Amino acid sequence: MFEKILYPTDFSDASKKALDYIKQLKGAGTKEVVVFHVIDEREIEHMSHLAELNVSIEELEKRREEYAKEEMKAIEAELKNSGFKVKTRIDKGIPFRDILKVEEEENVSVVVLGSHGKSCIAEMLLGSVSEKVIRKSNKPVLVVRR
Amino acid sequence: MFEKILYPTDFSDASKKALDYIKQLKGAGTKEVVVFHVIDEREIEHMSHLAELNVSIEELEKRREEYAKEEMKAIEAELKNSGFKVKTRIDKGIPFRDILKVEEEENVSVVVLGSHGKSCIAEMLLGSVSEKVIRKSNKPVLVVRR
Repeated sequence: MFEKILYPTDFSDASKKALDYIKQLKGAGTKEVVVFHVIDEREIEHMSHLAELNVSIEELEKRREEYAKEEMKAIEAELKNSGFKVKTRIDKGIPFRDILKVEEEENVSVVVLGSHGKSCIAEMLLGSVSEKVIRKSNKPVLVVRR
Repeated sequence: MFEKILYPTDFSDASKKALDYIKQLKGAGTKEVVVFHVIDEREIEHMSHLAELNVSIEELEKRREEYAKEEMKAIEAELKNSGFKVKTRIDKGIPFRDILKVEEEENVSVVVLGSHGKSCIAEMLLGSVSEKVIRKSNKPVLVVRR
């Protein structure tokens, strides 16, 4: 029921708090954690239009990916230390869509994710990533507040 | 982290599925479960206006309460058998509002609730109880799909 967890993370404080809950779920039978990060292609696209940055899309993507890999490494080590089997995955796309895709591909038992207590304006208008995942997921979802 | 669970239930299949997850959380440290049902006052009000029913609000409430008590008894027995400390509570009000109130009053660690995979039209317009709880809860919420 909790055997294989999908842990989508944007490396925020809210996501980091979700990690503590994952560790605690070991007692409920969790063996494996798929740590998943989506580089939001819309954000990269948007940033590349900011003339003052003077950086190409390719360069932005490269930097973002390097950052994600570093963060992933730390999470992987932490989860392995806690005795989990760990798989890490970084995709480029649209977060909620890719999360829903990967939860099927990996056939996870449950999704554990962090959520900011208060939404920014964009989230109030569009709905947060976590809300969209909850609404459309076929798997149980544990939402952890910051 | 999972010590005290609030389990709001409308006695639906989705809610019943959530019960299986609660049992499994014992290994993650769950000691106590607060089983909570809200008799939706708006629904009672609405039903009392259906002339063909020819039943008073008081009578409808009484029947609903008796039904809830019976259902609660079965859930309580099941959870006690699994070794949990159990508290049951039936309120009359508006479900999502009362759930948010009780999660604070009872100072639970986490809320576990069932959710229908597909929303009815009213839910699509108004948002489901689970969505509202997730959006406004200060506690982590585990949403279990039917």
